[in-house]
Amino acid sequence: MTTAELLELVASLNARDEIDGILIQLPLPAHVDVKTVLDAILPAKDVDGLHPVNAGLLQAGRTALAPCTPAGVIEILKRSGISISGQHAVVVGRSDLVGKPAAMLLLHQNATVTICHSKTRNLGEVTRQADILVAAIGRAGFITPEMVKPGATVIDVGINRITDPTEFARFFAGNAKREAAFAKNGSTLVGDVHPRGFELAGAYTPVPGGVGLLTTAMLMANTVRAAKMRRGVFVFSSKGAE
Amino acid sequence: MTTAELLELVASLNARDEIDGILIQLPLPAHVDVKTVLDAILPAKDVDGLHPVNAGLLQAGRTALAPCTPAGVIEILKRSGISISGQHAVVVGRSDLVGKPAAMLLLHQNATVTICHSKTRNLGEVTRQADILVAAIGRAGFITPEMVKPGATVIDVGINRITDPTEFARFFAGNAKREAAFAKNGSTLVGDVHPRGFELAGAYTPVPGGVGLLTTAMLMANTVRAAKMRRGVFVFSSKGAE
Repeated sequence: MTTAELLELVASLNARDEIDGILIQLPLPAHVDVKTVLDAILPAKDVDGLHPVNAGLLQAGRTALAPCTPAGVIEILKRSGISISGQHAVVVGRSDLVGKPAAMLLLHQNATVTICHSKTRNLGEVTRQADILVAAIGRAGFITPEMVKPGATVIDVGINRITDPTEFARFFAGNAKREAAFAKNGSTLVGDVHPRGFELAGAYTPVPGGVGLLTTAMLMANTVRAAKMRRGVFVFSSKGAE
Repeated sequence: MTTAELLELVASLNARDEIDGILIQLPLPAHVDVKTVLDAILPAKDVDGLHPVNAGLLQAGRTALAPCTPAGVIEILKRSGISISGQHAVVVGRSDLVGKPAAMLLLHQNATVTICHSKTRNLGEVTRQADILVAAIGRAGFITPEMVKPGATVIDVGINRITDPTEFARFFAGNAKREAAFAKNGSTLVGDVHPRGFELAGAYTPVPGGVGLLTTAMLMANTVRAAKMRRGVFVFSSKGAE
């Protein structure tokens, strides 16, 4: 599909009253103007929470539809009884999809928030301050054990498929279950946190089976929310994800 | 004016082609629904940069119209030749008007950014890490000297009028010029940074005469920018304030 065809499709979905949520599955082919297509989604149907209107409302703590993965991070913390207020949350990664909205949602929950990225100096010194460490870089095992404060809560947003046996060994040597799976499938998933980094954590989300599951659930929650909003059941919540 | 009357006024200003910028002078009287009025401004004419659309574009690094004070902070740093990339910027205060957009603009300039607020524990420990410290709390002399790392760049966004002689003495005892002005006027202005905090700084913005002046200049810059955007000269910049 061309950009023009996608815009036409989005316009028709925007106009159909029985459609409550629209999600563009990314990545789109290189010939498509992604931002133009995403911006064309009616904010009230933007269940991915990526439209500038929704990002702006989120920044102002007036979240209508928050991006699913960051919303899932907050949900995991809350449901696990991990207090956020007054804690130092360090978010590694500054994407529009995860890093920046996660920082905003944690801030609205009264965390002190630090946002790190590829240009951050002495990254380990910064991440070791984290009571809550959110890794959203997209690099396999990037957060090594010495970057984690013992007892910290570690939320691993990364999902990286590895196929190289040397890389596999670096992460999972001695892990019989993973070795069997790798031998069978020729690949395995690893997060942005080195598996040994989890050993130091007070609590952590595994990969696979952690944040990813919540993301899908939050997408459903956003769709229900969008449906309710469009019917005037409520418009804005005063806090981030709830 | 009632909320309805203000909405009518905003709608008429939105519609008039010769009007390029609209700014609502805050605070509004308590009976007015401020958010509804602010949200009614056409984003393309929102020279204060407060509309959710503009906040969302700013968060995505697609700033059309950035809030004036944070834009002024970046402008001061750039014009003073102070490098931002890779520096640790600590923003104290998380308002929609200053703290949050300043954090986003600094992030887009590749600073590592920490946002602190009233719930932050061990605030001094955090602020002492700052290479660039932005104080936007609205409390006179709140940032004391021991909270400043020697050599740091200190940007004081606060403008607080003090009239109490004891408070005055705490900040300005021994400062002949300030004492004469205080005796004459019965009040003086102090920022969010204790005047002795500046002594440690490598560079700082004074109060009065610092960020405040830039805010007005950035408002004019935004108005010109809005006029150009509406005439299609350009639509978005790829970076924050420029």
